[in-house]
Amino acid sequence: MSERIATLEGTLFALLEERKYSTIRDILITMNASDIAGIFDDLSHEGIARLFRLLPKELAAETFVEMEPDAQELLIQSFSDNELKEVVDELYVDDAVDIVEEMPANVVKRILRQADPEMRKMINEILQYPEDSAGSIMTTEYVSLRSHMTVVEALKRIRRIGLDKETIYTCYITEEDRTLIGMISIRTILLSDDDDVLSDIMEQNVISVSTMEDQESVVQMFAKYNFMALPVVDTENRLVGIVTIDDAMDVMQEEATEDFEKMAAMTPTDKPYLKATIQETFKARAPWLLILMLSATFTSLIISSFEDSLATYVILTAFIPMLTGTGGNSGTQSSTAVIRSLSLGEITVSDWLSVIWKEMRVAVLVGLTLAICNFVKLLLVDQYLLQNPSVTPIVAAVVCITLVFTVIFAKLVGSLLPLLAERTGFDPAVMATPFISTLVDTMSLLIYFQVARLVLQI
Amino acid sequence: MSERIATLEGTLFALLEERKYSTIRDILITMNASDIAGIFDDLSHEGIARLFRLLPKELAAETFVEMEPDAQELLIQSFSDNELKEVVDELYVDDAVDIVEEMPANVVKRILRQADPEMRKMINEILQYPEDSAGSIMTTEYVSLRSHMTVVEALKRIRRIGLDKETIYTCYITEEDRTLIGMISIRTILLSDDDDVLSDIMEQNVISVSTMEDQESVVQMFAKYNFMALPVVDTENRLVGIVTIDDAMDVMQEEATEDFEKMAAMTPTDKPYLKATIQETFKARAPWLLILMLSATFTSLIISSFEDSLATYVILTAFIPMLTGTGGNSGTQSSTAVIRSLSLGEITVSDWLSVIWKEMRVAVLVGLTLAICNFVKLLLVDQYLLQNPSVTPIVAAVVCITLVFTVIFAKLVGSLLPLLAERTGFDPAVMATPFISTLVDTMSLLIYFQVARLVLQI
Repeated sequence: MSERIATLEGTLFALLEERKYSTIRDILITMNASDIAGIFDDLSHEGIARLFRLLPKELAAETFVEMEPDAQELLIQSFSDNELKEVVDELYVDDAVDIVEEMPANVVKRILRQADPEMRKMINEILQYPEDSAGSIMTTEYVSLRSHMTVVEALKRIRRIGLDKETIYTCYITEEDRTLIGMISIRTILLSDDDDVLSDIMEQNVISVSTMEDQESVVQMFAKYNFMALPVVDTENRLVGIVTIDDAMDVMQEEATEDFEKMAAMTPTDKPYLKATIQETFKARAPWLLILMLSATFTSLIISSFEDSLATYVILTAFIPMLTGTGGNSGTQSSTAVIRSLSLGEITVSDWLSVIWKEMRVAVLVGLTLAICNFVKLLLVDQYLLQNPSVTPIVAAVVCITLVFTVIFAKLVGSLLPLLAERTGFDPAVMATPFISTLVDTMSLLIYFQVARLVLQI
Repeated sequence: MSERIATLEGTLFALLEERKYSTIRDILITMNASDIAGIFDDLSHEGIARLFRLLPKELAAETFVEMEPDAQELLIQSFSDNELKEVVDELYVDDAVDIVEEMPANVVKRILRQADPEMRKMINEILQYPEDSAGSIMTTEYVSLRSHMTVVEALKRIRRIGLDKETIYTCYITEEDRTLIGMISIRTILLSDDDDVLSDIMEQNVISVSTMEDQESVVQMFAKYNFMALPVVDTENRLVGIVTIDDAMDVMQEEATEDFEKMAAMTPTDKPYLKATIQETFKARAPWLLILMLSATFTSLIISSFEDSLATYVILTAFIPMLTGTGGNSGTQSSTAVIRSLSLGEITVSDWLSVIWKEMRVAVLVGLTLAICNFVKLLLVDQYLLQNPSVTPIVAAVVCITLVFTVIFAKLVGSLLPLLAERTGFDPAVMATPFISTLVDTMSLLIYFQVARLVLQI
């Protein structure tokens, strides 16, 4: 929360204490809905209900959309049917859907009962699309025009119906049966002559997505093409809705956050960090740590089986964390690069050969560099400077040979696993981290002890 | 690249072979600039130059903006002064700045020489702002209106000057000296009556950013407020430019990618994965791996100093990867959560107490859960099932006590370090990963051996 808002919040709380409602109202109406919602989050339930009723209709609905689901639910429960209807009437259909998706069944029923039939139909239509599909994030409130309209006619229609539409900046030209044949920006309309006909000035090569398209590819298209809105069509190329850039931006941020969480071995939650309860955070984190911990049984087994040799060459133990660590870091670098490139659409699964070829060349270079540096360091620092007699050149060689193979293996696994996950329909980000670290830890130890056996003859 | 574009690319290459330029032109003009640029990236330099000249002026400039810097540079070098001028004239100023920033000095000079004086002035103005500031990502091409104008007058002005402006969807109302006093969307203008005066219908509480504001906070404001554009003002609240949502979206994606790379211990590069050369990828990855590898000297030292005791209790070695691994994963969970929340603006440094309090409670819960599960697993699997006689209940206790403290320490470090980095002006994402893993590895071993000494009396 910015300082300015924090100051306003203090003032509002003081005024609420003194019940100076008209002053509060005067302040609230100068504020942005997001900021009001932010202040509501810090208020008691009863306080929210009192302040909310001070807001003018439109600002009230905008603020409602920005509030946390818990607060929305409490507020709905305090609404009379009439009050609920007023808010629902002001909502855009995609916002209404977002709210409905978060509410328990009985609240959903109340909301749908208060929505007018047209709105109810649209909400139900969007709700039928699978989560994270283009259909689920679109809105059905767009401006459609006909190709025979002139600029003047188009402007007249926009001015008549535009108030209820999510965006009027991009308008779509459809045929009678809603087949999408063109698009035109309000900019082009305004900058054209009054009697130009839309069919002459519209963009005919419309890029659209199907309702079932994954929301991540929708975001990629926005990033690639700099659209303000993207039309969503059914299998017969009939326009069913649009996704606007501000919603695409929200999805982009959500998807990135989810990837961060998955790659750090957490189950994504859609709650902001400090809003999630201890139980929720625990549930998101503990299972993955548990799986990773239990899968470390492999590393214990390998070390145990090598116990006798380790008893003679205890110094080998000293480099285990460095080796598994370097392996893990090398693998993470590759997997992160591949996962991010996949989600940005920079590469697809079909690029797997180029990816491996690139990673292997980098791996050899990196592995050799690390090995040489480490060899010098072991002799210079560990043996000479720290006077550790066990760090002989032959032990250093064992460590450094292992390093080369570990880095190569880690980068291979790190780049291949996300691609394999994507190919088989799993989420690259989820599959990647736990499997890679377990695999790399296990493999680096196997390589280490194998090299030690061969070189040290133990 | 989508299948549709790949097919078109094949066709175009075949047509280029046969020099059927007019057919190529007919196909190109139906395509989107991004897609054309994508195809150019796969062409020879000479091929690009030939195809580029087929494009109509506006599409040519749009395509040029979307091309890779290397290809842009080669193309500029093949341009005559006149051709260069034609492209530069069509560019929006913020796109021109992006290009200028990537080019070597002699190319920049040529570009600026061909730009008209007004454009040159604007480019130089934007170039003076520090990288990653609001000033550096804004454009100076916005529509400004006066508060006394009527809707009809405003529309007339927009239609007259709008063609050269990056966006006409949001217009800004300024005084003579460019002081920002209001904003109005083209939507509001269109949906108002012809003789309404702007001062009555404009939004007076304009949220703006200063030129020096970090681009990350600009992105946060777009995400929070659902703006289409954000005005950028100087210290005297005079309007100097605007940031449009499509540019903010690009910045959002870049910033997320940078954070992914930094958190995976890589130096961010702005090249797409497969475009970066082996040398570039090597340079981005090797230094961090090297630092992390060398910092693992601490763990070697600790293990070496414990060598004698380890020789008697070799079984303790078997759990080192599990302990450092679990510590690392616990720390990564916390640091990722904190880093992401910081960059989304969900928390600020001043929330550090709430963060620590939350993390500590989660850490205790997680630590105990893991310890109990691991204790049961050690006795059930390792001792009973795998018949490893060294895994006694007392050894299991040592491992599990260590686990609790390691998780708590890791989550403390993982949440504190990013906050500390942010507080001292470092990038949380960079500071976090290397320091945390080194610290946690070292500390978990210290805890492990200390607990072992105490419990096993060695």
